[in-house]
Amino acid sequence: MQVTKVALIGMGTVGTGVARLLIDHGDRTARHAGRTLWVESVVVSDLQKPRDFELPRGLLTNDLSRVLQNGEVKLAAMLIGGIEPARTITLQLLESGKDIVTANKLLLAEHGPELFDRARELGRSIAFDASVMGGIPIITNIGQCFSANQILSLRGILNGTTNFIVSQMEEQDADYAAALKEAQRLGYAEPDPTMDVSGGDAAQKLAILAHLAFGARVHWREIPCVGIDTLDSADMRYAKELGYRIKLIAVAQLHDGTRSVPTTSGALELHVTPTLVKIGTPLAEVRGAFNALQVVGDAVGPVFFHGLGAGQMPTASAVVADMIDTAVGRTGITFRTLNLWSQDEARVKTLDHKQLPGRYYLRFTVEDRPGVLAEIAGLLGKHQISIASVIQHEPSGDGAGRVVPLVIMTQQAKEGAAQTAVAEIDRLKCVRAGSVRMRVLD
Amino acid sequence: MQVTKVALIGMGTVGTGVARLLIDHGDRTARHAGRTLWVESVVVSDLQKPRDFELPRGLLTNDLSRVLQNGEVKLAAMLIGGIEPARTITLQLLESGKDIVTANKLLLAEHGPELFDRARELGRSIAFDASVMGGIPIITNIGQCFSANQILSLRGILNGTTNFIVSQMEEQDADYAAALKEAQRLGYAEPDPTMDVSGGDAAQKLAILAHLAFGARVHWREIPCVGIDTLDSADMRYAKELGYRIKLIAVAQLHDGTRSVPTTSGALELHVTPTLVKIGTPLAEVRGAFNALQVVGDAVGPVFFHGLGAGQMPTASAVVADMIDTAVGRTGITFRTLNLWSQDEARVKTLDHKQLPGRYYLRFTVEDRPGVLAEIAGLLGKHQISIASVIQHEPSGDGAGRVVPLVIMTQQAKEGAAQTAVAEIDRLKCVRAGSVRMRVLD
Repeated sequence: MQVTKVALIGMGTVGTGVARLLIDHGDRTARHAGRTLWVESVVVSDLQKPRDFELPRGLLTNDLSRVLQNGEVKLAAMLIGGIEPARTITLQLLESGKDIVTANKLLLAEHGPELFDRARELGRSIAFDASVMGGIPIITNIGQCFSANQILSLRGILNGTTNFIVSQMEEQDADYAAALKEAQRLGYAEPDPTMDVSGGDAAQKLAILAHLAFGARVHWREIPCVGIDTLDSADMRYAKELGYRIKLIAVAQLHDGTRSVPTTSGALELHVTPTLVKIGTPLAEVRGAFNALQVVGDAVGPVFFHGLGAGQMPTASAVVADMIDTAVGRTGITFRTLNLWSQDEARVKTLDHKQLPGRYYLRFTVEDRPGVLAEIAGLLGKHQISIASVIQHEPSGDGAGRVVPLVIMTQQAKEGAAQTAVAEIDRLKCVRAGSVRMRVLD
Repeated sequence: MQVTKVALIGMGTVGTGVARLLIDHGDRTARHAGRTLWVESVVVSDLQKPRDFELPRGLLTNDLSRVLQNGEVKLAAMLIGGIEPARTITLQLLESGKDIVTANKLLLAEHGPELFDRARELGRSIAFDASVMGGIPIITNIGQCFSANQILSLRGILNGTTNFIVSQMEEQDADYAAALKEAQRLGYAEPDPTMDVSGGDAAQKLAILAHLAFGARVHWREIPCVGIDTLDSADMRYAKELGYRIKLIAVAQLHDGTRSVPTTSGALELHVTPTLVKIGTPLAEVRGAFNALQVVGDAVGPVFFHGLGAGQMPTASAVVADMIDTAVGRTGITFRTLNLWSQDEARVKTLDHKQLPGRYYLRFTVEDRPGVLAEIAGLLGKHQISIASVIQHEPSGDGAGRVVPLVIMTQQAKEGAAQTAVAEIDRLKCVRAGSVRMRVLD
């Protein structure tokens, strides 16, 4: 049987999972690849660090040059996170003739064009299915399986940590701080959870998916993004009363700009934001640390994917599948065909976010006195925003100066108009606290 | 740009969709394939038949030899249903040097080994993602994306027609005949719906999936199979009361034979049967003509796919994706690597169906008199079947000789024991009609 010699760079959580699959289950990989993937070296920075998978003797090294100078190693899995030294090592590996498989989404989101151009110049390939949605093979599905389609829309839950937190808030009626603490206790959230809870991680993934599906060239920091760290569990309860759940939803869809319905051409709607999703629809039923994505293609219609978007073995599953694809030659073909992150112009323009149509959930904290609803409805009307439904419950305290929550679901309105109207309402004397505004997925 | 000349054999529903994608959207295909797929000929049996897509002049022919003798045509999409002449034409195409893309699942289920062996002898390939679950690219996902995994289990709704019918029965409280009529009126069911409603279509797909995922070599007629044509909407109501929906579920999972939980080794549990699925789990929420599959891999965990399993454009999407894969060379690699339907021995044994563990839903039609429950419970106990819950409602009629439905959910029991126990119960004097027995998905 043919042998492809491979190297692993990095042996953290994912690297350990990859080593486990390649070494403990080599027979299975050989059967599915028609060849043996032979782990020649595993490069780490600290040789002394305790590891929970014992490598065969002689594999572990802190000397990258052992890989760079070994011409028999044709393929390296780059499993170091962050930008540097990951970027420099990736370039060195490419220059020494290795094809690359990586799970490093930040590296691609920041340096995709540079790395892909260099790989093309050198006749090498980069596979990256593990970098987005872990075990869900969404890169292969969009880049290969749906290639007969114009993708119309991607709507997804791309970050398991935040989905765990919002699920906790909803199911346990917990506040954000308590739900975050629980997520940290269970290892779903990092000690510093900023990149997850700010929506940044989801925006990085969305930037990669939008590039692949639509030819968009948008840096993730340019994607309008609202995190979950200011979510109030009160809004979860009101949403439920209205038949919705709140999820951190990433959206990329083609748009004619008039209604929030995807079309085959137009500009690209692109954002990550807490969104009300109708209970009973697939995205609303995604619980805990799971990821999900609904892809709509003009031929295939809606296809929904649901699975574990992170974690040691799901991510390792994607890395090893990419390693097999690279070893047998499929990746090279796909890489040359799709010409990703090339100097080609973007194939799509981004829709001006202020012009984005959509329905909104609004919550105002207002004085409990006559005329308040009229005043607020008047300001919404001034900005052409129609009201679809209102919830106002009996106030809980009593006496003068009581405040009550006023929840309004709007009809279709423009993002800019909704933003301006809410800012104006927030300046009314009868409004006693900052208002809440969230998009509603139709 | 490079050109790959292709031929379409058959221009029924799917063929028309494929022609539409390749001819109306050639630019898109070219972008995703890095080359033009040029339709050289479309072979049909009846040139005069009216068609709802107008082909460019000179493409349509009833002369297969125009394709067979054209050495420039490297790829043919075989879009004729049934066994003959599809089988003979496929062999002729292979022998004249064409790679094949097909949506003909029956042909593969019956003649897979012959066709794949011949393709291998001739150095050609056969791609067949369109033959199972239409637009859901499940063949590529299992054969390529999950190749780092031992697949533990496949559980799915593989037939949209039957899922539409059972959804109608449940949602409209309709009986089977009325729901079938509605499915026929809307074009979801054929005038002769036998292959769908008997479960045969789902069994053919399951045989292909079990071969791909587990190396099983089981003819679809050997798969234990119960259709939906004897379903009673009363059972839908009782199931709902217990928190379940009834779906036609296809299962292939590895098993140690003791509990209905998948394992990494053992024998293969394989069947298609109406099954109670817990409300709120993904499979229970699949409505209408949709298909869905839950794949569990030992590394990736559970991944769930949901989409349109049939229909003109979803199936055409899969055919054209396979044509692109074949034209660029990915299919050839996969075909050689996976060595499907070869003379290799089966890698897995099928579990003796009588030894299959599982929980059961049982409904008996019994006399409304004291002692009946005891008698039935006694017979179940004799066969080591424990009762988990019972529903017995007030009888609706009155007087002597009244019959009432008695619904029992069991604990884990063996299929054979459940079958024998029900047969014995059916012979009791207090039981007045044939009993109902369905598996419950845990």
